[in-house]
Amino acid sequence: MTDRTDTRTNWLDPRQLDAVRDQVPIVYVDAVPVRTDDMGNVTHVGMLLRQTPDGSISRTVVSGRVLLNERIREALLDGSISRTVVSGRVLLNERIREALLRHLEKDLGPLALPKIPPEPAPFTVVEYFPDPAVSGFHDPRQHAVSLAFVVPVSGDCQPAQAALDLAWYSPAEAVSESVRGEMTSGHDRLIRLALASVGVLP
Amino acid sequence: MTDRTDTRTNWLDPRQLDAVRDQVPIVYVDAVPVRTDDMGNVTHVGMLLRQTPDGSISRTVVSGRVLLNERIREALLDGSISRTVVSGRVLLNERIREALLRHLEKDLGPLALPKIPPEPAPFTVVEYFPDPAVSGFHDPRQHAVSLAFVVPVSGDCQPAQAALDLAWYSPAEAVSESVRGEMTSGHDRLIRLALASVGVLP
Amino acid sequence: MTDRTDTRTNWLDPRQLDAVRDQVPIVYVDAVPVRTDDMGNVTHVGMLLRQTPDGSISRTVVSGRVLLNERIREALLDGSISRTVVSGRVLLNERIREALLRHLEKDLGPLALPKIPPEPAPFTVVEYFPDPAVSGFHDPRQHAVSLAFVVPVSGDCQPAQAALDLAWYSPAEAVSESVRGEMTSGHDRLIRLALASVGVLP
Amino acid sequence: MTDRTDTRTNWLDPRQLDAVRDQVPIVYVDAVPVRTDDMGNVTHVGMLLRQTPDGSISRTVVSGRVLLNERIREALLDGSISRTVVSGRVLLNERIREALLRHLEKDLGPLALPKIPPEPAPFTVVEYFPDPAVSGFHDPRQHAVSLAFVVPVSGDCQPAQAALDLAWYSPAEAVSESVRGEMTSGHDRLIRLALASVGVLP
Repeated sequence: MTDRTDTRTNWLDPRQLDAVRDQVPIVYVDAVPVRTDDMGNVTHVGMLLRQTPDGSISRTVVSGRVLLNERIREALLDGSISRTVVSGRVLLNERIREALLRHLEKDLGPLALPKIPPEPAPFTVVEYFPDPAVSGFHDPRQHAVSLAFVVPVSGDCQPAQAALDLAWYSPAEAVSESVRGEMTSGHDRLIRLALASVGVLP
Repeated sequence: MTDRTDTRTNWLDPRQLDAVRDQVPIVYVDAVPVRTDDMGNVTHVGMLLRQTPDGSISRTVVSGRVLLNERIREALLDGSISRTVVSGRVLLNERIREALLRHLEKDLGPLALPKIPPEPAPFTVVEYFPDPAVSGFHDPRQHAVSLAFVVPVSGDCQPAQAALDLAWYSPAEAVSESVRGEMTSGHDRLIRLALASVGVLP
Repeated sequence: MTDRTDTRTNWLDPRQLDAVRDQVPIVYVDAVPVRTDDMGNVTHVGMLLRQTPDGSISRTVVSGRVLLNERIREALLDGSISRTVVSGRVLLNERIREALLRHLEKDLGPLALPKIPPEPAPFTVVEYFPDPAVSGFHDPRQHAVSLAFVVPVSGDCQPAQAALDLAWYSPAEAVSESVRGEMTSGHDRLIRLALASVGVLP
Repeated sequence: MTDRTDTRTNWLDPRQLDAVRDQVPIVYVDAVPVRTDDMGNVTHVGMLLRQTPDGSISRTVVSGRVLLNERIREALLDGSISRTVVSGRVLLNERIREALLRHLEKDLGPLALPKIPPEPAPFTVVEYFPDPAVSGFHDPRQHAVSLAFVVPVSGDCQPAQAALDLAWYSPAEAVSESVRGEMTSGHDRLIRLALASVGVLP
């Protein structure tokens, strides 16, 4: 469980969270990590490998690198893991920026050096619904309203906690059929919207 | 109570809502209604007169126009009403655009003809906290994360339901000391951010 | 020649314009006309059929509808015409908004009722270069810096002057291989960036 | 003369540039340098002291620090210098990002480490006209269309070339009457628009 490691007192236990999810939309942040060159051009997009909301693979069962790759291939095929962006809930009394930084550090490790953009406005707002037909963005657990940001990271990224792996793709690779096929929840579309916002959608 | 008139089944009774507010941030939309000329230049900003979250004046006690104006002056002085933007909660399974349209029609009447902008990204995100010191945006009831939009309206606006009055101000008037003094919750700053986003902040 | 019909005194004759193009980048506006529903969702994108900058077909040689369609098919194949957005130069001492409105009326007719967005910031900036390799956006005549806007039009559009035809596409059609194949200069990418900015890129 | 030091072959001599300015609007970039904290919050805005377009003070006449300060006070009063943002022309065949970086390095020195934002869209577009009444943004030399960006700089800034001095202001100081009084051309408004775009306009 990712969130057990979180020490904030405004954390909710799973039963409380389920009850709230039946009552109101939940505030989320999505962060698309990117590498940029000296001119600010986005050269690569980072994507995590993570269990899907209803997946069952956890980091602890993955003991070795070779095993990881085999299991990943299987798990991608059976849909229990997928390529994804950094994503997570905004807690009560937490600033958006704090939530962004917390989730980036949780998924990319403490040395990633993310540059949270100074603008408070996201490049897009993603509306996730339990019904995939409503918006094309899907979360079986909840209605979430997510503020999505492109975040340049200049440091050393080490996938941490719930993230099994992190891979960097060029814009062309990020929109290729093979990478799209590894994404669920509409995250392939979110990647394209992110690339468009920084002018490098192929 | 404004929201009693809402017929959606995903409405929460006040006790339920209070419980949820102790657990998660609440998703809001803020809409700044504007008049534009043929070129798209913003010429006027609309502001409602509405009871403050903890105010006690309700529309039903206001029986006449003269009385209204006298009571308004008093109420503005004692802080039970204030000039404000269109603002309200996003309900469970409601799209952001639906919430915007619902709150605009609720406050401006059914003939306002608001043009919801095609972009899903707000011009800013307002973080309201019970503690006014956190962000400068204040809501004594809750931590709310509000997506703020500038919405051109071309029709006939009639303040409805909880709104006591609607007045249109030029950009210069909207940032004047006297109008600022009638706003609470940081809404004077929100108006300035809105005017800046459309390039007419004086 | 489209621009001969323009009566502004700040117009330049072709020789003057060529000389200036050898000295500085030229300011342009690109407008992507869209149809929206009551909620502001973009449902259709409008694209013109227009001779390419170095093409030779002119409106006057097209005398009938059947002929038009046959010639169009040929002309699309041989590259002398292409599907395109509304695009044109900003004149000396002209406001951006004036240029937008002028070019929209020139290409879509006087009854199109375009709603120029209130924001002065474009959704993207397109840098056209004589060398297609520099940015992927290509103009054989010049280095142009173009401010690109999505513009909802609610009226009756009649392609005028240099525009041979106007067709409306759903977002899915607009990014299809067949429509992409009819676009040059990187305008297919511009359409995708526009759709992304309004959240409907498939 | 700042621009003499520029070695690009697409440079124009003053007479050529004057001729072009009589024919087309000129493409500019404006950069507002900012300091940010770890969360991306803007804490300070940097402003240059520079001769106004028609001012007469040049860097070479300023030989010492004390003399500088005395002369600055006088020059601010007589309007020959003013507080300003980083601003300059985009050259033929130059990318917007290249122009931004070139002007930032020219004004802030080679160790400023500016982070050019990945987005191609500016936060606003400033239209400078010889007639100050048109847009409120004024340039006696020309009609310029300027793409304005907020640029975080993390390095050591040393005003270079035409810049006499660089000072950092908190958002509250940057909008104060005294600092406003030192700005011309509408740059005080540009600073407010920049602060609004990053959510810290007071």
